[in-house]
Order: sequence, then C-alpha cells, then structure tokens
Amino acid sequence: MRQDPVPPNDPVEQLVALLARIPGLGRRSARRAALRMLQDPERLMRPLSRALDAAAEAVSPCRVCGNLDSRDPCGICRDPRRERGLVCVVEGVSDLWALERAGAHRGLYHVLGGTLSALGGVSPEDLSIQPLVERVAKEGVEEVILALPATVEGASTGHYLADRLRPLSVPVTRLAQGVPMGGALDVLDDGTLAAALRARRPA
Amino acid sequence: MRQDPVPPNDPVEQLVALLARIPGLGRRSARRAALRMLQDPERLMRPLSRALDAAAEAVSPCRVCGNLDSRDPCGICRDPRRERGLVCVVEGVSDLWALERAGAHRGLYHVLGGTLSALGGVSPEDLSIQPLVERVAKEGVEEVILALPATVEGASTGHYLADRLRPLSVPVTRLAQGVPMGGALDVLDDGTLAAALRARRPA
Ligand SMILES: [Zn+2]
Ligand SMILES: [Zn+2]
Repeated sequence: MRQDPVPPNDPVEQLVALLARIPGLGRRSARRAALRMLQDPERLMRPLSRALDAAAEAVSPCRVCGNLDSRDPCGICRDPRRERGLVCVVEGVSDLWALERAGAHRGLYHVLGGTLSALGGVSPEDLSIQPLVERVAKEGVEEVILALPATVEGASTGHYLADRLRPLSVPVTRLAQGVPMGGALDVLDDGTLAAALRARRPA
Repeated sequence: MRQDPVPPNDPVEQLVALLARIPGLGRRSARRAALRMLQDPERLMRPLSRALDAAAEAVSPCRVCGNLDSRDPCGICRDPRRERGLVCVVEGVSDLWALERAGAHRGLYHVLGGTLSALGGVSPEDLSIQPLVERVAKEGVEEVILALPATVEGASTGHYLADRLRPLSVPVTRLAQGVPMGGALDVLDDGTLAAALRARRPA
C-alpha cells in the first residue's frame, strides 16, 4: 500500500510531475531532484525558472536551416567562416548539435524534422524537403551531405532526397557506415559488422 | 576539438547549465533535455517554470519535525490519524519520504538534518538533536524509532541519541538489519550477510 505525504494538488507533487516530463528523469529521479531543489531553492529553483522563461522566450527555429537558436537566422547560418556551399542534411536538431560538438562539419545544415515513414504516416510534405530543394537551387550549394540515421527510414529518406535533388546536378553524398571509433567488434550488431566488411578499404 | 553552436551566455547554454545542476541529470542529459523542451516550450518549459516558483514560494521546513511541506506544521504533523506517541528519527527528508511511500510508519517523524561525523566536522549542535530531546520530554512520546543509515556515522549517531534520551526513560528502538526483501543473497555485501546471520530468528 503506497501513500503520499502530500496531497495531489500540492506544489511539491506538481513540481515532481513536471520534472518527471524531462526526458531522462523518471518519476523516482524527479522526486529526488525536487527534494534536493527544495533544500536550496535560491540556487536550484529560482535561476532555473528564470532560464526556462528566458529560453522559451528567446529561442525559435532558424528560418533558413531549422536549427533552434536565440537568433534567426541562427548563429551557424550567420557565421561568415562557414562554407556556404556545403549543406549537411540531418533528421533533427539533436543531430545538428552532435555534429557541432564533434566539430565535424564546417558547412551549413538543413534540418528535415523527421524521416519518411509509410507506417508512421510521414510523407514528404511533412518534412522540410521542398525548402531544401529550393535552397539548393537558389543558393549555389556545391554538395549536399546526407547525415541521416542508419535505419530503414533514414535510407529511404536518403534515396528520396537524392531523387528530388538529381535535376539540380549537385553532388549528394552520405556518411560512411562502419565500425565506430574505439568500438570493440564483438559488441557491434551484425548489420554494422556486415556493412563495415562490405565497405572495406585498403589498409 | 569541441566547439559549441551557441555562445556561452546564450539562453540555451544557460538553460543547459542550470538543468545540469539537477541531481540525476548530467551535462549530456541536460543538453538533450533542453533540446526536447525547446521543441515544446508551452508544455515542457512554461509550466515547469511556474511550478518551480510556486514550490519555492510555498514549501518550507516543518517547525515540528523538519519535513518539507507547503504547510507548517506539515501534513503529517497535522494528521489526527497518526500515532503521536511514536516518533521515527531520520537523517534527512528523503528518508522520511521513502518511509511514507512504503506506508511503513503510522507515527510522526523527526528529521535530524544529517549524522554525526568527527571527520566531517558534524557535531550534535549542527543537528536537530536538542529539539528532539525537548520534543520527547514535553510531548508524551512513547517510543523513539531510530531509522538511521546502516553506516558508521548512522550507528554512532544512534548511540549518541540513545544516551541523550536515556534520562527520559522512553524506549528507543532501531530498524532491524538483514537481507532486503526479494534480494538474492549472492549480490549482498559481506557486512549485510554477517549482520543478517548474527540477527537470525526462529523460522
Ligand atoms: Zn540556421
Ligand atoms: Zn512536521
């Protein structure tokens, strides 16, 4: 028999319920987090509340690439040091941020907002595909790099994009598949191993 | 070489930094959480901001037992169904909440705010010990249950409390130690196994 020391419309319970919506925090961790916060509200609660409001106010999708940023166009689209002829297409903003953290790409981005999925009912009009085609047609793009997930949906989205971009005669490339850096072979799934073997290169 | 798409005093970075202070969320999860939140600010950011302010405003330590609650005295101290003669002493509020979730205790609580530690420089005046002694002396307490951590500090705090309470002639008990429910024996540490064996009872 479980019971709770505080009624369900109590401020503590409401805080726990909303913290539990944060991806990565379960109900149990949310309760622990709420408790720690309540013991130091000036450091842990007030500033977070202000930061949430400030970010919700300031941040919006970049009208050019779809990145989330406090400027529009975003800091990447504005940066004169980026190669404007190189556009990397990603499924979502989290992929863009991961590539930025890796310092792996010196060009611009285009966020699709998802991948095509017949089962999931995601068709080309649901994604930012027409804007990508227009961008490539108008802005002197020299190469489109598809950095899409290595899934069935990612692959079919890549094929669809290559078809749509073909009339523009711009090279379309995709990320290499293979063994991740530092990864032991015996923990990799069979598909990755097979793909890495097929794509083998001279040593 | 790692770089960041947003400048360090950007609203997104500030949000990530403050989310990363939440116990249980590392820097990496904080970034992922911020990203998810920014994609749905009306559901994930605005209500959390309001709940943080409301809880910081409303919640304070109970002047009787030290529980954190939106009422003072807290809901447990006010509850006429609780056995007022039974006081369970805990190290912190999280232990109180855990016992409440378990529905394990039908009396009241007393939160010490820590355990004695010569090394950590925690002495009796740093804990809510004098208020406990006064409470037991004045309020007709019939049994004090020590629900302290099964550590060296927990044990020495328990001994100290038993000494301090002895003149009041109130029974002082402590939680049984042994094998946790559902726990396989071979994953338990040696100390737990030895204690459980010493405290063995007729089957
Ligand atoms: Zn942009
Ligand atoms: Zn209380």
